[in-house]
Amino acid sequence: MSMTFDFAPLVPAGAPPPAARWTGSAKFNFTGGNNDADAVPLDGLMAAAQAVLAREGRSLSHYGLASGPQGYRPLRDFLAAKLKRDAGMACTADDILIVSGSLQALDLVNGALLGRGDTVICERDNYQGTLTRYQRLGVTAVGIPLDEHGMRIDALEAALAELKRQGVRPKFIYTIPTVQNPTGTILPKERRVALLKLADEYGVPIVEDDCYADLIWSGNRPPALYAMGKSENVIHIGSFSKSIAPALRVGFIVAPWSIMSRMLALKTDAGSGALEQMVLAEYCRDNFATHVPQLRVALRKKLDTLMEALNEQFGTAAEFAEPEGGIFLWVKLPDQVDTLALYQKALAAGVAINPGPEWSTDRVHSKSRMRLCFASPSQAEIREGIAVLADICRKEFGVPERSANVARAKG
Amino acid sequence: MSMTFDFAPLVPAGAPPPAARWTGSAKFNFTGGNNDADAVPLDGLMAAAQAVLAREGRSLSHYGLASGPQGYRPLRDFLAAKLKRDAGMACTADDILIVSGSLQALDLVNGALLGRGDTVICERDNYQGTLTRYQRLGVTAVGIPLDEHGMRIDALEAALAELKRQGVRPKFIYTIPTVQNPTGTILPKERRVALLKLADEYGVPIVEDDCYADLIWSGNRPPALYAMGKSENVIHIGSFSKSIAPALRVGFIVAPWSIMSRMLALKTDAGSGALEQMVLAEYCRDNFATHVPQLRVALRKKLDTLMEALNEQFGTAAEFAEPEGGIFLWVKLPDQVDTLALYQKALAAGVAINPGPEWSTDRVHSKSRMRLCFASPSQAEIREGIAVLADICRKEFGVPERSANVARAKG
Repeated sequence: MSMTFDFAPLVPAGAPPPAARWTGSAKFNFTGGNNDADAVPLDGLMAAAQAVLAREGRSLSHYGLASGPQGYRPLRDFLAAKLKRDAGMACTADDILIVSGSLQALDLVNGALLGRGDTVICERDNYQGTLTRYQRLGVTAVGIPLDEHGMRIDALEAALAELKRQGVRPKFIYTIPTVQNPTGTILPKERRVALLKLADEYGVPIVEDDCYADLIWSGNRPPALYAMGKSENVIHIGSFSKSIAPALRVGFIVAPWSIMSRMLALKTDAGSGALEQMVLAEYCRDNFATHVPQLRVALRKKLDTLMEALNEQFGTAAEFAEPEGGIFLWVKLPDQVDTLALYQKALAAGVAINPGPEWSTDRVHSKSRMRLCFASPSQAEIREGIAVLADICRKEFGVPERSANVARAKG
Repeated sequence: MSMTFDFAPLVPAGAPPPAARWTGSAKFNFTGGNNDADAVPLDGLMAAAQAVLAREGRSLSHYGLASGPQGYRPLRDFLAAKLKRDAGMACTADDILIVSGSLQALDLVNGALLGRGDTVICERDNYQGTLTRYQRLGVTAVGIPLDEHGMRIDALEAALAELKRQGVRPKFIYTIPTVQNPTGTILPKERRVALLKLADEYGVPIVEDDCYADLIWSGNRPPALYAMGKSENVIHIGSFSKSIAPALRVGFIVAPWSIMSRMLALKTDAGSGALEQMVLAEYCRDNFATHVPQLRVALRKKLDTLMEALNEQFGTAAEFAEPEGGIFLWVKLPDQVDTLALYQKALAAGVAINPGPEWSTDRVHSKSRMRLCFASPSQAEIREGIAVLADICRKEFGVPERSANVARAKG
């Protein structure tokens, strides 16, 4: 009677494995969408918190403030104006649903459209959180190869045709067209036109995950798929995690009411955090347009440091294309490197990386690839962490000291 | 090709109906866990926001701050001390998971333990958000009748025995023992002992939803079931929604690691909102113990107004027991009143109520009952709204002007 209760027999079949106890972060952390601590606009956020709380803080006594279930109205108004200006999107506050980070957006999209056994199409190399969601839902993800300009439209067309031959109607095409995760590619306008045409032809809607679109070095982005579509078949997802701060869990969905109303019915959380919405709306209204370019400069410097460190330490053994924006680099190591094994050995040495097979629908293609996030570590940590990583690659995987004609820098 | 895309054929079977467009709140709103706007501790929250942001705001650049996936460490430390002092719970920060409101707690508990076709036991009159979750999950909820001291233990024992005879092992007993929703009852210590004994005997764990436990007028609460259990078979849920502000979406789970690790694996949202956690931790450390008694006084005054208004307007036609705490009153109207029909007519007149059948596993028992929340409307709104409601009851449902010997107050 006083023995410890055993919950295990009550856990339903198919549950994910239990989480491990958290033991802290790696010393050199090249994983996760963490941002540059120095780039958090702290003074602005503090001023915004004071102003908005003083003016309307008593509304915290009500679920959803006075704005209803789609989220704090001033934040939706800010977004409608921003999305029109930056992404060419003609939407109003009524078309926008504020959510608890873009991960909740993914859950709501998936909940509204996916059932066990369904099929979706997505870029082959992809965001881990998206791929694990499909796995847990029992959904087949058909990965489309990318080149330097993002999803290959010829491969997409072939996949759509093949699925049609098999009698499978994919539920949607999930794409990160603007600074793709993890490849950093940007889908050019012509490919967007072609993608939308195929989506219409095959009757397959598009889920456009645009979380990194603010972080293009040039500041110029192609119009959003949502803006270019003619048949209201695009669900657009965005976030403040990358542009302001990830620990503020605020993202958004822009979608036609026919599917928005389905997602809203699944959002049974009594609203997303109101204080974060209020502070963001207050801050962003006057400061977003000046903050983001400063953040880009800081991120671009860290990318330069990372690419320099990789060139110095790996020479041509580390292949990558310079991304046009974002916070990560997708790196190809020599074929003999299994990045799942490298992940374990590197972590033991204090270096955290994202192994390729966790970020791709194709384990063979991604076996020797890895994702390195550069926004959070300092310049010194980037240099030191990459040196440690290269050392492990040489010692454990036989990556040569000297690749091609590039000599490794002496430490 | 340019026709509007039709998402409907893609929505999986069994999806909930689409949400309706929000059209604003009722003039007299007796629904929802909204709180007293004047009781929001605004100065304290503003000071806390400034202090905590100035000290550690740069940590917003990292998911989970520096505290890992279980939530902001200082908030968990505050909770561990508070739960020990108030509820007799011996837990540490490692036993606590911060979540996005207690609704996420319910989702995580349900996700970790329930599958389609399962059975749970709960109080017959119950929180609507709990009951609708079971419906959507395809879970049978066996409702246990309550009396003035909460769940009837004899009825619980009979239900457990009957289910055992049928070969059904319920996944858990869900209970709101301390200011039960909607009845406002408090389960006395002896019943808690008996409940825990039955749970051990039948091998059924307990989910203790303690969201209202801070709002007992006397300030004295029985120890939590979590504190009294001997076999680590209780999952404890709490929230800051009722004690500080509902729009801050911060709740918590206290549970043994064997099941906490299962819930943590399902919490794939990259953490709950950090700013709200930081501000709450900073505020509560020095102010929670003085704020809550002030809030109770304000709520108690509104309850008195509501009970007076009901007595004046309905006489003995409105039956209720005076709750020992909380923010709602569970009212029995004459049998001829169908509160689902009353809900529609009242809403058209600007009065929002919670109809009984949405708050009970038993539609017959609850047909003439309703839940009235009193924390949010002003004293004047309470009086006026109840007068409008009584008028509708008389005109539409034949509730007499004069019930027993109590004459209706003249307006």
